[in-house]
Amino acid sequence: MSEMLEQMSEYVHDLQDRITTTIGELDGVSFKEDSWERPGGGGGRSRVLQDGNVFEKAGVGVSVVHGQLSPEAAIEMGGGQEIKDLSFKAVGLSLVMHPRNPMAPTVHCNYRYFERGDGSEPGSWWFGGGADLTPSYLFEEDAEHFHKVHKEACDKHGEDLYPRFKKWCDEYFYLGHRQEARGIGGIFFDNFNERSPEECFAFAKDCGDTFLPAYVPVMERRKDMEFTEEEHLWQQIRRGRYVEFNLVWDRGTKFGLRTNGRTESILMSLPVTARWEYCHEVEEGSREAQMLDVLKHPREWVK
Amino acid sequence: MSEMLEQMSEYVHDLQDRITTTIGELDGVSFKEDSWERPGGGGGRSRVLQDGNVFEKAGVGVSVVHGQLSPEAAIEMGGGQEIKDLSFKAVGLSLVMHPRNPMAPTVHCNYRYFERGDGSEPGSWWFGGGADLTPSYLFEEDAEHFHKVHKEACDKHGEDLYPRFKKWCDEYFYLGHRQEARGIGGIFFDNFNERSPEECFAFAKDCGDTFLPAYVPVMERRKDMEFTEEEHLWQQIRRGRYVEFNLVWDRGTKFGLRTNGRTESILMSLPVTARWEYCHEVEEGSREAQMLDVLKHPREWVK
Repeated sequence: MSEMLEQMSEYVHDLQDRITTTIGELDGVSFKEDSWERPGGGGGRSRVLQDGNVFEKAGVGVSVVHGQLSPEAAIEMGGGQEIKDLSFKAVGLSLVMHPRNPMAPTVHCNYRYFERGDGSEPGSWWFGGGADLTPSYLFEEDAEHFHKVHKEACDKHGEDLYPRFKKWCDEYFYLGHRQEARGIGGIFFDNFNERSPEECFAFAKDCGDTFLPAYVPVMERRKDMEFTEEEHLWQQIRRGRYVEFNLVWDRGTKFGLRTNGRTESILMSLPVTARWEYCHEVEEGSREAQMLDVLKHPREWVK
Repeated sequence: MSEMLEQMSEYVHDLQDRITTTIGELDGVSFKEDSWERPGGGGGRSRVLQDGNVFEKAGVGVSVVHGQLSPEAAIEMGGGQEIKDLSFKAVGLSLVMHPRNPMAPTVHCNYRYFERGDGSEPGSWWFGGGADLTPSYLFEEDAEHFHKVHKEACDKHGEDLYPRFKKWCDEYFYLGHRQEARGIGGIFFDNFNERSPEECFAFAKDCGDTFLPAYVPVMERRKDMEFTEEEHLWQQIRRGRYVEFNLVWDRGTKFGLRTNGRTESILMSLPVTARWEYCHEVEEGSREAQMLDVLKHPREWVK
């Protein structure tokens, strides 16, 4: 393993510890851990909290894997068209949390480091990641807070980063067949190697460290709110959209399923339950319509 | 429209009428219809029964569409690599029915005729389709019946057809990332143009006419069976697998979403509700384990 792979591995394992401890305390139910090995090389440590008090399902996984890319996958992953050495190594943390309460947003975050070959060629290593929020009901203060703390983390590394990665997030987490965003966004970046490895790593760490301060205050405000059966049904329909995004559009999911990743860890991101109603419609002027409007017209949440 | 497009259009509209009448009577709740136009050209007639007595959701759609293929889509769809005229016309019927009772199987069937250009070049027209059954619990007599009547329809056109198309069905409706089949199969064929257009059409019609006699007797045996809450949960998990197949593997779904198909009609195939549990396991020797065993080891159902 290269030095950077080791450093990133240490970082994401520590971040997983911090996140599962804090979220486990918030819920009152602890995460259960299982470790797994990937037949093609490497393995991971998945921690899942299912059927909690606050969370229907919350999964936080780290993985350190290596293997061989198919030529098509190598080209699709970028970093130049002429690739001789198809070996790759990747280390990352990935999490998705689906709260019970329809007023509380689902959250996703993922930080990863990727190396092709020995990572010494220009463009053969990069960082990627980000975090984004998917509410069923819009609370502007939650969206503002989530974006604000991520902007602060980005700004430490240059004021150009947040606007670029906020926009990229809106574009990436987009359901083309629905013409709507998955949620209210956050940040997303990929193939990030425009600075030295150490500077890129420092940036990824600052973003990763932002997860808990970005999400926990939101959950504390929402987890015990009252809700109706209709609001629960709307949440279930939004869960269906979440499934659609992950299975139809998400590159990480497709890459995982295509490279013989561990299915249960990849699909840990899916909600426990989801719902599809034919031609479901929302009432004009309702809170559901307000949510859809924001998904169709992404906003700037920080001035 | 070519003569064959017109004939096939007439056939699938009539088949839709027959199916929705019979299934509506079986359920006690009628299908609701809506017609739609496709921005790229053509349109369809969708009929959906939601929240019925017997069916959680049943959708039967016909569509007659035309448009332009992307060069990649044209190549992927077969029929030769050198394609100058990218226009296409397609007519088809597609249905999925998800019963409430976990003892009653989900069914899918689809018959379609496709023409590239004016359909006069060899390999530029074909029929495709099939029908397959997806139970949550195995009843051997249901599987045997479903296969037997489809074999009879095929045999009228040559005894080689059923074995080929039964095998193709097992291979097509397969979840690579789960290493299991979607259900207990049926028949599946594509790019079928090895005989004259009239003979191919006659074959597709005989298969289409087999849907009701294949499925209705099974439903009559299963729709009112008693079941437990655990059996309902297992059905929900199997529904999750159905969603995974349709969104990750099904070529028809991908083609539809990629060619600006009508999303609500394409995703009409999804169940109302589905469930994902992390690392769900079944008890050895249970009926759930027996079902999984058949999905992992497809059987011959007709001698």
